[in-house]
Amino acid sequence: MTTTHATGGRGDGAGAAGLLARTRTAVDPRLRATVESLPGQVRRIARYHFGWEQADGTPSEGTAGKAIRPALVLAAAQALGGDPQQAVRAAAAVELAHNFTLMHDDVIDEDPTRRSRPTVWTVFGIPDAIITGDALCALALRLLAEDPHPASAKAASRLSACVIELCEGQQSDCAFEQRAPQDVTIDECLTMAEAKTGALLGCACALGALYAGAGEEEVDALDAFGREAGLAFQLIDDLIGIWGDPAHTGKPAGADLASHKKSLPVVAAMASGSSAADELAELYRGPAMDASAVRRAADAVERAGGRDWAQGQAADRMARAVQHLSRAVPDLTAADELLALAEFVTRRTR
Amino acid sequence: MTTTHATGGRGDGAGAAGLLARTRTAVDPRLRATVESLPGQVRRIARYHFGWEQADGTPSEGTAGKAIRPALVLAAAQALGGDPQQAVRAAAAVELAHNFTLMHDDVIDEDPTRRSRPTVWTVFGIPDAIITGDALCALALRLLAEDPHPASAKAASRLSACVIELCEGQQSDCAFEQRAPQDVTIDECLTMAEAKTGALLGCACALGALYAGAGEEEVDALDAFGREAGLAFQLIDDLIGIWGDPAHTGKPAGADLASHKKSLPVVAAMASGSSAADELAELYRGPAMDASAVRRAADAVERAGGRDWAQGQAADRMARAVQHLSRAVPDLTAADELLALAEFVTRRTR
Repeated sequence: MTTTHATGGRGDGAGAAGLLARTRTAVDPRLRATVESLPGQVRRIARYHFGWEQADGTPSEGTAGKAIRPALVLAAAQALGGDPQQAVRAAAAVELAHNFTLMHDDVIDEDPTRRSRPTVWTVFGIPDAIITGDALCALALRLLAEDPHPASAKAASRLSACVIELCEGQQSDCAFEQRAPQDVTIDECLTMAEAKTGALLGCACALGALYAGAGEEEVDALDAFGREAGLAFQLIDDLIGIWGDPAHTGKPAGADLASHKKSLPVVAAMASGSSAADELAELYRGPAMDASAVRRAADAVERAGGRDWAQGQAADRMARAVQHLSRAVPDLTAADELLALAEFVTRRTR
Repeated sequence: MTTTHATGGRGDGAGAAGLLARTRTAVDPRLRATVESLPGQVRRIARYHFGWEQADGTPSEGTAGKAIRPALVLAAAQALGGDPQQAVRAAAAVELAHNFTLMHDDVIDEDPTRRSRPTVWTVFGIPDAIITGDALCALALRLLAEDPHPASAKAASRLSACVIELCEGQQSDCAFEQRAPQDVTIDECLTMAEAKTGALLGCACALGALYAGAGEEEVDALDAFGREAGLAFQLIDDLIGIWGDPAHTGKPAGADLASHKKSLPVVAAMASGSSAADELAELYRGPAMDASAVRRAADAVERAGGRDWAQGQAADRMARAVQHLSRAVPDLTAADELLALAEFVTRRTR
């Protein structure tokens, strides 16, 4: 991680892209060395998951995600006046924890594909996916327990608490799938999204602040920044799931509607009490939607106010995120990397 | 935990039984308070798993295991001259880690029953069993990360490394099930048993020593003691799985043979190269065994030397365990509780 700031690139993602590339350069060696410490078959499966190996063990170019969370750790450390290089272990720990949840979520959600490759459970079986996920979780916390940095115990406390919150979020998400969409309230959905998505982005920022030697109030402010930015990210992601351009998303138009996903704009629309809400509920009670039904459902979400609500909420959350950040970093120019990352994740079109 | 020693009860299990009861009294309040910190449904499922609640949420008497691992933590602390009361958090952390592995192992092995009750996955489904196990793992390491005791970081390092070894053991166990029993070597089997059973008993003893302020060599000696005792325990357990009295085990005679389990005496028998080994291999290639086939298989294991080998190994391992212990505690009378526990787990008849 160099200390060059991402200047002038805000919004267009160019600054953030450079930051993410520099993060990979700084964090990947530590991440790889840590994964290499795993035993036998568990190590092999982890290598496959991170895209460093094919299923047959031959080397692969690697497509291991965008490194947003480790970038948040390093950028937060920098924003609080710390040396990002000192926070590389913490950044790797957050990335390991993230990947542990992905591996288990793919089993639970029966997802066949992750980063354009077959998921671990489809290649190695459910038992090995559970076991390797467990090992990655323990490895993340081991990395912090063995880090001599004075902030490492507090970081381990925050990361383990965050893992528990991620579990809660995933559990709520599964439970919501069993309920009729009009029975799930917006507040429940926002709480679930905060636990499932916001918590780890908040934790990443908090760990960066801790490693910069920040005090408790500043650390909490960075956590709140990451959480709010994470919620904005989820809202935008949900909008893309309905109105995203298939040429950009790589998925059919309205994929989330077709699969009856109870995303935030849908739940908000259902709660409106309008005739469009009834129409939408009717479509969600029916079979999986064809292209024509998907168009009618998207139209109903829009007429019921779900699109406007989600866009307003996302803007609102980003505003709150910046407010929280300014409590810890009054001169926001010192936090331009963090802001570039937050805008990158919330402005992306796919 | 009182400081009363278990005197005169060695071998008959009475001293150990008292120790286990006192451990429950000392550790259960911390264990319960920690589980109560979990969110919503995850907390409810954990309460069910520990036997504190029925599946419908009504209170239950609790049948949460024998507390052998937390008892080892406290007894090791005492043997090294520490105050067991200071190690209660570490004892609770070890018990949480143990129960996380049980919850996931039950999913992986498709076991329907645990402690005479339906397993979590059969009651709440596989997703909730995976998620709640994850939360217990994070909770175990959180408890250590938030423990102000000066040994807590080293303890977290050891426990997280141990969880990774437990994962390796479970992975090997699953992999062995896919191979013909005569293709699995005794060394592979012993390594697997050490990872799956010995590692956590060793870690429990090591944590007790750490919390007593012991040096690295003593901590390693206690780890080695627990590992060897754990292997002895596994060997005895495997003998019981073949020759145990159904009146004591609660399972049909030779249950492990009937299910073609590749236990240590079976693998040793197969490796003997005798005609009895061929006979046994033939029975293992066939369908699930009836009572008559089970009798013939048990006889073949005995004639091929599997029974004698396992009994000899168990005695040998216990002798090595005591040797390791004496490196850290030259006057073994100071370690009578630890020895009573080790004899309890290796002399039990069910």
